[in-house]
Amino acid sequence: MNILVAGLGLIGGSTAKALRRAGYTADGFDRPQVTEAAKREKVIGGVCEDTRKYDVVFVALPPDAAMRFIEESSFRDGAVVADFCGIKGEIERRILSKERNFRYVGCHPMAGKEVSGFENSTETLFDGASMIIVRNGQTDAGAVEFLKDLYARMGFSMIRECTAEEHDGKIAYTSQLAHIVSNAYVKSPQANGFYGFTGGSFQDMTRIAGVDEKIWTRLYMLNREAITRELAFLVSQLQQYLGALESGDEAALCALLREGRLRKEELDKERKII
Amino acid sequence: MNILVAGLGLIGGSTAKALRRAGYTADGFDRPQVTEAAKREKVIGGVCEDTRKYDVVFVALPPDAAMRFIEESSFRDGAVVADFCGIKGEIERRILSKERNFRYVGCHPMAGKEVSGFENSTETLFDGASMIIVRNGQTDAGAVEFLKDLYARMGFSMIRECTAEEHDGKIAYTSQLAHIVSNAYVKSPQANGFYGFTGGSFQDMTRIAGVDEKIWTRLYMLNREAITRELAFLVSQLQQYLGALESGDEAALCALLREGRLRKEELDKERKII
Repeated sequence: MNILVAGLGLIGGSTAKALRRAGYTADGFDRPQVTEAAKREKVIGGVCEDTRKYDVVFVALPPDAAMRFIEESSFRDGAVVADFCGIKGEIERRILSKERNFRYVGCHPMAGKEVSGFENSTETLFDGASMIIVRNGQTDAGAVEFLKDLYARMGFSMIRECTAEEHDGKIAYTSQLAHIVSNAYVKSPQANGFYGFTGGSFQDMTRIAGVDEKIWTRLYMLNREAITRELAFLVSQLQQYLGALESGDEAALCALLREGRLRKEELDKERKII
Repeated sequence: MNILVAGLGLIGGSTAKALRRAGYTADGFDRPQVTEAAKREKVIGGVCEDTRKYDVVFVALPPDAAMRFIEESSFRDGAVVADFCGIKGEIERRILSKERNFRYVGCHPMAGKEVSGFENSTETLFDGASMIIVRNGQTDAGAVEFLKDLYARMGFSMIRECTAEEHDGKIAYTSQLAHIVSNAYVKSPQANGFYGFTGGSFQDMTRIAGVDEKIWTRLYMLNREAITRELAFLVSQLQQYLGALESGDEAALCALLREGRLRKEELDKERKII
């Protein structure tokens, strides 16, 4: 089986490494200095010269580059082509609107780090993580079964299936909103000289603040509706706490905190049940 | 040297355990079922019967209870009495306004967990953490030096000294605001069925959501001015992102994210320098 990993950054590099650990040798596609390092470290077998050679293609590029790569490449008949982008609606709109000879499956590995690049990729990044597989009317069942098996071998412990719309709505909340909040959080003048004034809360809140604005601005724009809805909701929630604080309404503040605590307990319960 | 730890919850229990690891045996004060467990596990030597017996008293109670405990107890002449509350201005206003025969030092250990109670306390909780010591015109230098030495033995790797006002301003930002944001974050309808749709970002953002509203409401009220200022600032920041998203202004959104990334890089640098 010939496998290609297009894009050898944090996610693509980790994909190639997890595949290698599972006994597969993938080829790679990226800038020469990256593929050279990946080859030297035996993470990839070789550099992609013809995309038609591969049975399986993982596209771990930013959304615009991923869509271009899929649209402009020629693939073998029936090849399984899976992108790993953090938005899915826009990609489906572009890929599914055209005739194609390959089997496209939108996927999104729920793993990451606050640093990027091949040099930060690891073979264990996906261990215990969830992989989202996006289904639509054109999805090939065999391709999904094949990928599920391969993902398990790569270390994923859970598969979630959903539509592109469900995916984009959930991810706007669990990931994209979190990055905005973290990015905004560090801007307080009180952040100066913070060192020694923090426990784990501040570290957790600001870990992902340093987003690459070029990649993330595009992601947000491609999922603008869902992320706008989530951010507006969070701001409206925070304004309730602010109102209670400003007016010194202890009972109102207590009720707001209690509501959040109960919600958190529900979520923790959900985590345990599944 | 006779040491008392008043309040054997997460922080007080960990204090007694860290002291034991360092070769000291403290007495404890708490509800009978707690002191009984602490005694059975040999975390404390005995139960406090007379506060005048102790050279050092650590008060690890919620603010109102801590203030009452200090005000209503009799201490030995020159005893070092340190509270561990998360606010300091209000406590100083009450303690310092009265004559006293003991040496009061406001302290705040920068360590915690999202769970509370003696059963979650550990002797390693403070390892590598920072201890804030609050100084004012009445602070006894000898008591501070004594505590610094003892805190180092308990595992703290850093001491920060500041005024009560500086403490309350910083903590409003690094801790109290973070808890409000986390508490509000879990309220989105999208949180339903989140499982499998999350990487580390969501976990980090929501870890501390489940605050005990009774304790935290009081903390917020006792530090209302600073926390209101911080929350208002964060909301105003988030509204800028929201505006850019709503109007589809990609350049504005990119500039906001860039500003946050640069700020985060500054903070990371600060962390490395100190």
